[in-house]
Amino acid sequence: MSELVSLGIVAQTGLIAHGRGEAFDYLIGERTQPPASKAEEAAAALLLEAKAPVVTINGNAAALAARELVQLADLVGAKVEVNLFHRSDERVRKVCDFVERESGRKVLGRSQDAILPGIASDRARCTKEGIMSADVVLIPLEDGDRAEALVKAGKKVIAIDLNPLSRTALAANITVVDELTRAVIGIVGAVDMLRGDPAARKKILSNYDNRGCLDDMMGIMRSNLGEGSAGHNRDVRC
Amino acid sequence: MSELVSLGIVAQTGLIAHGRGEAFDYLIGERTQPPASKAEEAAAALLLEAKAPVVTINGNAAALAARELVQLADLVGAKVEVNLFHRSDERVRKVCDFVERESGRKVLGRSQDAILPGIASDRARCTKEGIMSADVVLIPLEDGDRAEALVKAGKKVIAIDLNPLSRTALAANITVVDELTRAVIGIVGAVDMLRGDPAARKKILSNYDNRGCLDDMMGIMRSNLGEGSAGHNRDVRC
Repeated sequence: MSELVSLGIVAQTGLIAHGRGEAFDYLIGERTQPPASKAEEAAAALLLEAKAPVVTINGNAAALAARELVQLADLVGAKVEVNLFHRSDERVRKVCDFVERESGRKVLGRSQDAILPGIASDRARCTKEGIMSADVVLIPLEDGDRAEALVKAGKKVIAIDLNPLSRTALAANITVVDELTRAVIGIVGAVDMLRGDPAARKKILSNYDNRGCLDDMMGIMRSNLGEGSAGHNRDVRC
Repeated sequence: MSELVSLGIVAQTGLIAHGRGEAFDYLIGERTQPPASKAEEAAAALLLEAKAPVVTINGNAAALAARELVQLADLVGAKVEVNLFHRSDERVRKVCDFVERESGRKVLGRSQDAILPGIASDRARCTKEGIMSADVVLIPLEDGDRAEALVKAGKKVIAIDLNPLSRTALAANITVVDELTRAVIGIVGAVDMLRGDPAARKKILSNYDNRGCLDDMMGIMRSNLGEGSAGHNRDVRC
């Protein structure tokens, strides 16, 4: 991560955000837990059911998994839009260049021609062709304001966020509490499995309980913080 | 924090470590919890009882609380030693200059003439006059290798660390699970209270249960991760 700061891809405060994620990843044992697998499966189903899916990429997401995120977008026919938290024209250009170089694919976001309602900063900026027209948006490592605004704008939101208590995690329709690269690999695997099976996709989505998954992820963190004895059995809801 | 990276005080990976701390601070409610107050009181007692106390300062500690740490050292007659995690001669000089400028006091660590046994890197370097001669060492935001080596070298170790599961937290004799600036303010307050009362200091130290405090801090984190109901009562041991 830190070498990508000097390239202008990751903001310095992005490193602090990355550290916050590391702490939560440590608390889930640095591996994909069963409730996260369920969320990844639901994310795959929703992306495959979408009419106009969009995958957004910010600086940290680009640094950690640009290639994997674009690969996922290709698999589900999603557009890719670069959308930064700490925005400057120069950083937008650098992150777009970086993602295009890493993935060999063109991305949206260089010129933003739309405003997402409900955000009073330049973080409201996005593209008409991408985020504004999307029915389903995958937001890896996104801030709470934008996550809430996307939900209010009527979009189905899939978040990838290691903090199960964050506003982003609570606002999203599907919250994958997993490290970004592991999460994307998990979603890609589920896309492969569900591609030819619309009935399975619909069943997964109608049974999916995001609040239950979040509660179960918190339970895993509590358990790693010393709750209960070795023989303690937890009921994993989803 | 991030502006101090450009001054060479904080390493870029120090920002990631700071983020990890922020996540744990979030889980304790971003305030000094009762078990942390107890640990701060015990830290004050131990520093006042010490014959040759030393306060160490690394880049992150300098950035967050250089003045407060040196003020504490002055109050208990401790030496101050700069001791970096990511060491280079230039950073040593810069952090020493920074702490001296902020605090108006000379610090040890510019020229390191001793090796702490048990560490196979230049992080073993320290000074004869400071860390090597100390009976009590306060280590804010320290790594696990050095914390364990200090304990093995027979020193009483006071750690300030927001992660109650870290090797540093587990190795130390007294672990203050609190944000650095709040922790130092708490210890300074307790020093004022205990300065003239050796009997109270001895009583505090003989009753102090570090493992109990760590368990209670983990209980608070579990509670903030959704354990129990609003009416749930927790038994705080220390």
